[in-house]
Amino acid sequence: MENVVVGIDVGGTSTKYGFVTRSGELLASDAIPTNSENSYQTFFTHLYKKIDGLKEKLGIPVEIKGIGVGAPAGNNVTGTIDEASNLNWEGSIPVTEILESVANKRVVLTNDANAATIGEMLYGAGQNLENFISLTLGTGLGSGIVLNKKLIVGQNGHAGEIGHTTVFHNGRSCTCGRRGCLETYVSAPGLIKTVNELAETTELESELRDLSANQLNAKRITGAAKDGDVLALKAFEFTGRILGLKLADIVTCINPEAIILTGGLSKAGSLIVEPAKKHMEDQLLDIFKDQVDISLSTLTEKNAAILGAGAFIWKELEEKELIKSY
Amino acid sequence: MENVVVGIDVGGTSTKYGFVTRSGELLASDAIPTNSENSYQTFFTHLYKKIDGLKEKLGIPVEIKGIGVGAPAGNNVTGTIDEASNLNWEGSIPVTEILESVANKRVVLTNDANAATIGEMLYGAGQNLENFISLTLGTGLGSGIVLNKKLIVGQNGHAGEIGHTTVFHNGRSCTCGRRGCLETYVSAPGLIKTVNELAETTELESELRDLSANQLNAKRITGAAKDGDVLALKAFEFTGRILGLKLADIVTCINPEAIILTGGLSKAGSLIVEPAKKHMEDQLLDIFKDQVDISLSTLTEKNAAILGAGAFIWKELEEKELIKSY
Repeated sequence: MENVVVGIDVGGTSTKYGFVTRSGELLASDAIPTNSENSYQTFFTHLYKKIDGLKEKLGIPVEIKGIGVGAPAGNNVTGTIDEASNLNWEGSIPVTEILESVANKRVVLTNDANAATIGEMLYGAGQNLENFISLTLGTGLGSGIVLNKKLIVGQNGHAGEIGHTTVFHNGRSCTCGRRGCLETYVSAPGLIKTVNELAETTELESELRDLSANQLNAKRITGAAKDGDVLALKAFEFTGRILGLKLADIVTCINPEAIILTGGLSKAGSLIVEPAKKHMEDQLLDIFKDQVDISLSTLTEKNAAILGAGAFIWKELEEKELIKSY
Repeated sequence: MENVVVGIDVGGTSTKYGFVTRSGELLASDAIPTNSENSYQTFFTHLYKKIDGLKEKLGIPVEIKGIGVGAPAGNNVTGTIDEASNLNWEGSIPVTEILESVANKRVVLTNDANAATIGEMLYGAGQNLENFISLTLGTGLGSGIVLNKKLIVGQNGHAGEIGHTTVFHNGRSCTCGRRGCLETYVSAPGLIKTVNELAETTELESELRDLSANQLNAKRITGAAKDGDVLALKAFEFTGRILGLKLADIVTCINPEAIILTGGLSKAGSLIVEPAKKHMEDQLLDIFKDQVDISLSTLTEKNAAILGAGAFIWKELEEKELIKSY
């Protein structure tokens, strides 16, 4: 009988789930549409039936020790998803309460960025680190902060909203309703906006000028930069500089060992890491210089969200010494 | 026999010390010049003799459980004072090693801002808080961060250098050699600089214009502002706004319950708290609004540094469960 946990990643269009061993092996995984036209009660009950079905198909006997759920706006302290803008359900959704009553297992909920952070800690680039920050660079900029090997949640479970720290007080409009947030610059849409601004305000030649708005994406910009496209390179230098300057401030506050980058935009690798590192170092006090690594996630992105949610419940069970009781 | 610890505050000109009970009573205190013309070995040996002398004079029998030392650039992780710019001793001074060998007691060292933070946690405005930040607004801006009732020290003991986060990348020159650090704006010298800049760049009437450079200080500016001096009020509004905007970023990262202000400039009270609170709130995400208190230290400044150093060693003894062994 192998001990596993269930990792669940609730996304706007689909919800992925799978069985994760303590060593980080994903034994099986599947997905269902996040059908938020039905009630959330119906959805999560249906989801658990599918999980039970996957367990039967597994072929080997497993014991489910607990369930970890990662979701946008998932709150670890309250166990609820609150006002998630990409889900149709309104108000506060009591995810842990519903799943605990259906599954009769320990359930923990967290936001997707914090799940990714614990995934890095247990299975990825954070395995040997005591103090680090994980940044998920995708549609937005999610983050999680680990100090003394513990995720910082803060007073209300909202710690780690680094994407909404301010870069320019009258800067770009953010989806949060404010202006100049870090994620309006350091994210896939932020990079695209920078390319468009450079195309308008400079004469730099670029193959990106031939693309329609629908064709222009972070992958194309990365490809162009790797081919030496001057405008694309300039866009990455700008993006990395903004990130590096903000990281310098954060390092000055909490003195971590490393920053781990994950998410779609992190695939640009050195295109973003090098300017971020350079401008961070330039800005640091001497006592912090040459001590903070900026590295890339070592997890496969395809499974990272399920692994992260699984890691989160493993960590919870171990910290609360609940493994034997479930 | 009463259990006490020794709290020591090493300053540039004098070193204060006293006996602190677990409940925060200061039984006796005294000071000696920080004579850094002698070797540091000689100084700390002499200091401990004076402490022993004070113990004899105390009149009641006490047992010294440990020694806490607060000093600028004191490093909690290494136990050394490193390159302190206001002390004549060069290099790295092994304070805990020297005092432990002289006194045969457990000794902990930390920087003065972190000592003040633990002082707030045990005896001051932080007593009922799990997550808070303490800011010492004086000649510089020192800070300490408490999360889950523990002081954050980071990878190398340097966490909490909020005074050296950046406000304007090409801003005022800082003593650290960089530009635009928060402490060049939010500190006593920062306030004076702001008054001077406003005197030069505006036509605002002000009694402060009649003062010489030697006469102009934070106390005078505070007095003028309380009397309704327009220029002084504008200087506080500017200082509070800079502080508030930076606090918004820090709240967004670590979601604390409160910010506690201490140090000379904090005596300005609402003159600095109100604009800081207003601009912090304006800048926060909805999930953080109306939840973070900005309050003033409840400790008497005269004894705060000794109490803070004493609190630090009490906390250490309790966390390491060493109280019974010393």
